[in-house]
Amino acid sequence: MAAALTPAGMGEDALVRRLLGLLPQNGPGVVVGPGDDCAVVSVPGACRLQLLKTDSVVEGVHYLSGEKMRRVGWKALCRAISDVAAMGGIPEHALVSIAVPSRMEWMRLRELYAGIAKAADAYQVSVVGGETVHTSGPLVCSIFLTGSVDAAHCLRRSGGMPGDLLFVTGRLGGSLASGWHLDFKPRLQEGRWLARSGHVRAMMDISDGLASDLPRLAKASGCGAELHLDSVPRHRGRSLLQACCDGEDFELLMAVVPEDADMLLNSWQDTFPKLPLTQVGRLMPKRAGLRPAGLFKMHGYDHFQ
Amino acid sequence: MAAALTPAGMGEDALVRRLLGLLPQNGPGVVVGPGDDCAVVSVPGACRLQLLKTDSVVEGVHYLSGEKMRRVGWKALCRAISDVAAMGGIPEHALVSIAVPSRMEWMRLRELYAGIAKAADAYQVSVVGGETVHTSGPLVCSIFLTGSVDAAHCLRRSGGMPGDLLFVTGRLGGSLASGWHLDFKPRLQEGRWLARSGHVRAMMDISDGLASDLPRLAKASGCGAELHLDSVPRHRGRSLLQACCDGEDFELLMAVVPEDADMLLNSWQDTFPKLPLTQVGRLMPKRAGLRPAGLFKMHGYDHFQ
Repeated sequence: MAAALTPAGMGEDALVRRLLGLLPQNGPGVVVGPGDDCAVVSVPGACRLQLLKTDSVVEGVHYLSGEKMRRVGWKALCRAISDVAAMGGIPEHALVSIAVPSRMEWMRLRELYAGIAKAADAYQVSVVGGETVHTSGPLVCSIFLTGSVDAAHCLRRSGGMPGDLLFVTGRLGGSLASGWHLDFKPRLQEGRWLARSGHVRAMMDISDGLASDLPRLAKASGCGAELHLDSVPRHRGRSLLQACCDGEDFELLMAVVPEDADMLLNSWQDTFPKLPLTQVGRLMPKRAGLRPAGLFKMHGYDHFQ
Repeated sequence: MAAALTPAGMGEDALVRRLLGLLPQNGPGVVVGPGDDCAVVSVPGACRLQLLKTDSVVEGVHYLSGEKMRRVGWKALCRAISDVAAMGGIPEHALVSIAVPSRMEWMRLRELYAGIAKAADAYQVSVVGGETVHTSGPLVCSIFLTGSVDAAHCLRRSGGMPGDLLFVTGRLGGSLASGWHLDFKPRLQEGRWLARSGHVRAMMDISDGLASDLPRLAKASGCGAELHLDSVPRHRGRSLLQACCDGEDFELLMAVVPEDADMLLNSWQDTFPKLPLTQVGRLMPKRAGLRPAGLFKMHGYDHFQ
């Protein structure tokens, strides 16, 4: 199959899996390697686990060339913070690496940094270094973020069990069209609260849409899953398809211990009265596969390769 | 001055300084912020300080498009390892973030990762994660590396004092022309040995050439400096100008306590008999400036702005 010879013809999951398979990653201190929202490592003597994350935004891919650079900077750092939130952690230190097009105006680059600074201030991240390099192509802004999490409250994608109820925070769909993807607030406080609740067994953030991300959580947990299409919480005016497939929502998806669900919902409503927490499905035994099959097939998830 | 309006018209030091000035970086645990070879942070409970570094290679800037990708991968990780070496530390965990041109062949991307893997194996780095994004421009490969160092043996650029003797490891010049920049071995063992010797007060790696990097060490240490042109160790067939200005040497430059120099040199020769360690100058009081002035002026270092 000719398409498989070039990365552009491969799904990102498959590509990253094949590439990372080439690299040594089982050294001392590695608790969680590639494949989760963050890598997790243990630091000798430290009381907490360390989270490591890298995430990039590319001009023309993650934002349009004419976009306000302050919003792009906000998004760049908040994407990585969202992954730390999804593990139940808190962000700590960041490095910023930017490949700058030669034609770029100083003021726009300055605005990009101002956006990063705003997010760093908002979520108490110290930006301790970085670099700029020149490129003849579009701008690439890579964020490297460290964080930390109690070992007892570190939520992976892989902790779910058949029967667990699947919940999402907030509402989904239309993020790119509405501009939400440039202004969203990572669910940091919520992620930490959920991790500490003791009622959640697996969690991740929704960056590519439920139709892509739910299979990832199910697969990591060794489960099948069913999505209840009628229950998917949507932003006003968005279709079900948009809610499942648009992506860039940066809400949290989690697997909840079934008998704890009522208790979790009650405390949630007390703590975060303005943000919905909605059951959208449940994990199943692996042999049940993914349902509705049509939706997931559309996204290439008809089998667990 | 029109050139100052676009980043392309600014020196990288000035650009990074202005940009990083916009960002919060004095949070808890920050020991060394931007401006040294690595950032240094303290981790609660941990016995050692943590080093954080990001470094990118860009197609057409740090390597030619037709280059063997395995060598490019080696270089990408080894550049960051060299910065950890310059602080006296050891590398630990890496993340790899790659913006991939859509037209790139899978095999070349695979070779890039194979080169990263080879370097990771050689220097015992665990690659714990990463991501690929697509770009319409040239390839950008960003490495994020953590490391650690004893607090007592962490060497910064800023520790030098007037009168300290300046030494460099190895030989300089012609790195790009000879291909050394793609195959070099970061001075990891040497950096650690130097840091633990107790005879070195400041250190950095030479990535942009002595004419650019020596002023950085002098400035960080609040000193002037004189370079003894006759003493600069050069690769065979390279001119003095090449040795001072070519860059990409990835040797170590350090400030040595004057009365310890003989002792250091003797133990060095016993430990690393094949690698020269050469005195190339000394730090001076700040008011003495940089000598020979002509050489440094050429690189924009006529004053300490």
